[in-house]
Amino acid sequence: MGIRVAVAGASGYAGGELLRLIAGHPEFDLVAATAHSQAGHRVDVVHPQLTGLDLVLGETDPTILADADLVFLALPHGQSAALAAQLPAEVRIVDLGADHRLADPYAWAQYYGGTHAGQWTYGLPELPGQRELIAGSTRVANTGCYAAAITLALAPLIADGAANPADVVVVAASGTSGAGRAAKPHLLASEVMGDLSPYRVGTHQHVPEIKQATGATGLSFTPVLAPMPRGILATVTAVPARGVDPQEVLARAYADAPFVHVLPEGRWPHTAATLGSNSCHLQATVDVDSGRLIVLSALDNLGKGAAGQAVQNANLMLGLPETTGLSIWGVTP
Amino acid sequence: MGIRVAVAGASGYAGGELLRLIAGHPEFDLVAATAHSQAGHRVDVVHPQLTGLDLVLGETDPTILADADLVFLALPHGQSAALAAQLPAEVRIVDLGADHRLADPYAWAQYYGGTHAGQWTYGLPELPGQRELIAGSTRVANTGCYAAAITLALAPLIADGAANPADVVVVAASGTSGAGRAAKPHLLASEVMGDLSPYRVGTHQHVPEIKQATGATGLSFTPVLAPMPRGILATVTAVPARGVDPQEVLARAYADAPFVHVLPEGRWPHTAATLGSNSCHLQATVDVDSGRLIVLSALDNLGKGAAGQAVQNANLMLGLPETTGLSIWGVTP
Amino acid sequence: MGIRVAVAGASGYAGGELLRLIAGHPEFDLVAATAHSQAGHRVDVVHPQLTGLDLVLGETDPTILADADLVFLALPHGQSAALAAQLPAEVRIVDLGADHRLADPYAWAQYYGGTHAGQWTYGLPELPGQRELIAGSTRVANTGCYAAAITLALAPLIADGAANPADVVVVAASGTSGAGRAAKPHLLASEVMGDLSPYRVGTHQHVPEIKQATGATGLSFTPVLAPMPRGILATVTAVPARGVDPQEVLARAYADAPFVHVLPEGRWPHTAATLGSNSCHLQATVDVDSGRLIVLSALDNLGKGAAGQAVQNANLMLGLPETTGLSIWGVTP
Amino acid sequence: MGIRVAVAGASGYAGGELLRLIAGHPEFDLVAATAHSQAGHRVDVVHPQLTGLDLVLGETDPTILADADLVFLALPHGQSAALAAQLPAEVRIVDLGADHRLADPYAWAQYYGGTHAGQWTYGLPELPGQRELIAGSTRVANTGCYAAAITLALAPLIADGAANPADVVVVAASGTSGAGRAAKPHLLASEVMGDLSPYRVGTHQHVPEIKQATGATGLSFTPVLAPMPRGILATVTAVPARGVDPQEVLARAYADAPFVHVLPEGRWPHTAATLGSNSCHLQATVDVDSGRLIVLSALDNLGKGAAGQAVQNANLMLGLPETTGLSIWGVTP
Repeated sequence: MGIRVAVAGASGYAGGELLRLIAGHPEFDLVAATAHSQAGHRVDVVHPQLTGLDLVLGETDPTILADADLVFLALPHGQSAALAAQLPAEVRIVDLGADHRLADPYAWAQYYGGTHAGQWTYGLPELPGQRELIAGSTRVANTGCYAAAITLALAPLIADGAANPADVVVVAASGTSGAGRAAKPHLLASEVMGDLSPYRVGTHQHVPEIKQATGATGLSFTPVLAPMPRGILATVTAVPARGVDPQEVLARAYADAPFVHVLPEGRWPHTAATLGSNSCHLQATVDVDSGRLIVLSALDNLGKGAAGQAVQNANLMLGLPETTGLSIWGVTP
Repeated sequence: MGIRVAVAGASGYAGGELLRLIAGHPEFDLVAATAHSQAGHRVDVVHPQLTGLDLVLGETDPTILADADLVFLALPHGQSAALAAQLPAEVRIVDLGADHRLADPYAWAQYYGGTHAGQWTYGLPELPGQRELIAGSTRVANTGCYAAAITLALAPLIADGAANPADVVVVAASGTSGAGRAAKPHLLASEVMGDLSPYRVGTHQHVPEIKQATGATGLSFTPVLAPMPRGILATVTAVPARGVDPQEVLARAYADAPFVHVLPEGRWPHTAATLGSNSCHLQATVDVDSGRLIVLSALDNLGKGAAGQAVQNANLMLGLPETTGLSIWGVTP
Repeated sequence: MGIRVAVAGASGYAGGELLRLIAGHPEFDLVAATAHSQAGHRVDVVHPQLTGLDLVLGETDPTILADADLVFLALPHGQSAALAAQLPAEVRIVDLGADHRLADPYAWAQYYGGTHAGQWTYGLPELPGQRELIAGSTRVANTGCYAAAITLALAPLIADGAANPADVVVVAASGTSGAGRAAKPHLLASEVMGDLSPYRVGTHQHVPEIKQATGATGLSFTPVLAPMPRGILATVTAVPARGVDPQEVLARAYADAPFVHVLPEGRWPHTAATLGSNSCHLQATVDVDSGRLIVLSALDNLGKGAAGQAVQNANLMLGLPETTGLSIWGVTP
Repeated sequence: MGIRVAVAGASGYAGGELLRLIAGHPEFDLVAATAHSQAGHRVDVVHPQLTGLDLVLGETDPTILADADLVFLALPHGQSAALAAQLPAEVRIVDLGADHRLADPYAWAQYYGGTHAGQWTYGLPELPGQRELIAGSTRVANTGCYAAAITLALAPLIADGAANPADVVVVAASGTSGAGRAAKPHLLASEVMGDLSPYRVGTHQHVPEIKQATGATGLSFTPVLAPMPRGILATVTAVPARGVDPQEVLARAYADAPFVHVLPEGRWPHTAATLGSNSCHLQATVDVDSGRLIVLSALDNLGKGAAGQAVQNANLMLGLPETTGLSIWGVTP
């Protein structure tokens, strides 16, 4: 008899990846998976990769979800707060949406709009002290996918005093699953294949989360849609605050982190190596011409950027080993 | 203390996938992984997706391999027979190459050239009676990737008398990892992306294996290289021998097979749904115009088409549950 | 002062390619481009690749279209007949939709539904005598994209008596632009990249057109969606009716066709080589095992399969050299 | 009787694109195309997209090239100087390699190694006064592909005093054809598809060219290999030197440039829209959080980044209209 878990928002890409991870998790029993327009369909119709899993998606009914020990919320931004409010306090929740990430209600209002739902424990276990906070929480706000990639690259350098927080420039490219499963014209395969396309330049809604999580005070962030289903590659540059070996700072920060790998010199992170895993690969250097720090960070936006991260947080909240049911290794090529 | 396994030919794509599966297998301990030109390199340099695995590739030394309980041979065609001959009889071997698949030495000479190494137990557990044969064997010849996809689609229909073996037409497309990791100009990304490219039309070396495994006596097989890293989609058509419901025949044949899924009506197999898994998806119909049987088959050429299949065979040979360490679910999107 | 042309249905992929070809055509002046929901938008908003073209899409108004010498109809199937009926007889029309392709009203009713609009001159100039028929017509029905690829491969072999028309098996894969620009979930990049996906197996609506154009009497046709924006690769197999060199038959049939290239022995058609061009590449062999004829055919579904073909037909109808404004060469890599 | 042109290095990707453009150029007659290991092969064997072009690649013989009015050199870096030295002064030369781009011999020695061949007229006609310099030159050094994308985005802002040249951060991603046609393992389709991969981080050899052409004095440049055959997307950020509307500065700079398009507000450049064309698309904004200028630049690395640019330069050198034989419109989707 395992731990009873449920997924709300199971029809999207993060929801599907959650179901895959839960199906392979040795301690979890899936007791409910709910959806909106896809409620009533067999899961293998909605997620053909889960063929063989005998499950029908249900309506998003709080009384059903309340029967679980832990609920994953994989809902569109702005929808999880209302559902979370209807769940008993003793049911643990990991929210993969943005609703409970920000401390600053004004930032929420400016970038997302509407009323701020309040802040939960931030679900990035690799930040100093955060693993213990998560383990002691019943409400955890999973990181955004870009935020995970960028924070893992940058936070230790700012915390160490190695990077100037006031002048951070990030360009990050994501695979299309990060844009969700709604059928929008610009996400059609005919438009995306063979194309790199920037979007929300200079105004992306993840900026306040990234600043909050990294400690950056001035951040230029340009996101780019890349022609691949999964993966984020973030190029993070900052002015060094003093003579520093950025690789050494990162290696020290993640010495005990099973999923964050600072690569040996000469190897650079690339997204495919993390596909399907919960790993993040990092490498850093100092630019010979400009002297800026450059850190490259790669992860799977549905893995360490969403569903994998969520399971890692759930493991901690439930007292399980952090790595239970998660893969360090990517599915490549 | 687990079962001691080793991999010869660990630097190629099938070898890398074997290492990934072994690293996640609850009963296997990897005792050696050997390579040719890559010997001496850390495994994460050769396979970046295995970053975090502490392992150096060794020379292909039979005395080292002989120390394992089971050896996987993932060598180029024509190279495994010589190595296998140097291993003790009690060491179990799964050969992912073609050397020991064919019963007919003339077919070997015609399609591969050189001396035929003899036939081992054919490693497709879903063929009638084959699971038991494999379980009782110490030498198993893993199927070819195309052969796996086509045989699972066709063999039950021919065995049942539902399909005429004399007039089978197959067109099958494969992702590029099926062509191996040698740096050949036609496999460059610039050539492959955006392209569908047929090859060895009318003369592919898998023809005798497919005929032997399916029972087909007349086979037209056209392979196509597709712009994706993994996956095989086989379109198998045959003249029905009598009024028949091909879906029913297939469903009956695979009722107890954990990795072969005959899809519900209305759903067609597609490759991405099987990525990273050991599953094969099947669907069949009768063409309204021509009356031919059409069976579609999808699998991951590195999964059920190579490394997954090999682990499944190894599980059977070692008395483990067939599904140990293997995933039914695909990594999608 | 050039020839005045107009495009109805200019917002789709075929419409965009038509606009590109017209913009580069030395004899054509574009006088109107109309659309449905996109009417009123600048063309570069709808088709970013046409940035620099100063044009606003108009409403689909027959009185505006009637002002042109020739109108291209690139509308969804079933919509061109009504519009064509409102245009004066002296305005030449090339219909890229299916409405006027079929001779048989029953086939129309069975595969498309609704009332058959009647048959126009079939717009495949490379069929025997067809170039002259097109030149003498004011109404031409452009071929379907699959039909173009398959007919060019097969029609000469059946006409010559070299292939048995009763047992033709075709598997053809298409890039996603062939599925149109409507935002449907299964056409999302996240679903398509890394995937091969069959559809409408055994019941595709192009079957009657292909039979009519090729002379095949028994046809099994399996279409597959491939992870690339453009291109069709058709594998056409048939039983030879007598000892025959299929390559010689094809070479003879297309000796004078500027856009159909029977490749030298040893080279096989592949789609990327035709991208952006109006060319079709062909190669044929006899399968060593089954003895079937195998013909491979590659073209750009938006080029020779749609807009390029349409311009070629328009050139003929207007007394221009067939090749005016069209490229033989592909944009590769 | 047209202008006689020749291509040395015709077997690579830039060489193939040059042959395509020359074949469609109304004023050029191709008199020779030479290659190294591919000499003696038919051009359609080396470049299948040029099927129908009756041409055999020749040896790289200066006496043959000397017979042309203009020679394009598309050779590996470091090889064009020696060949150029053997051509008569009256033969015009456009060098697509890096040999003659840099003014500074120390930068050449540091980033490329070996002896500096001297500087030729820099082949970017859109720089102020450069069009006239090119028109008056018989030796022109074509830009690098990254340099073209970045310089068009940045040079006017620095020249105008709008951007601080001392703190420029660029992340630019390129399709694989920019990496050439040599069969290297990391360029295999299996490695590239689904992957974003940074390379030469902090030390790329294009840095001195970019600094020279843009006027930047401090430059952090991170290049990324993207899973597409063609296209460069450059994200260029700089500190504004004063209150400035970067879009207005760019629009003024390129008011008369037929191939550089500053997009209307709300539209961002993306690579696919420029595929196969000689166009560059630009858009700029000021980041709301950091206040940095962000300019996005997209072009086809084989078009405006190489062969298209070369033909544009050749047109100017030969007194032809700049746009002759070049397309403004992209081949999309």
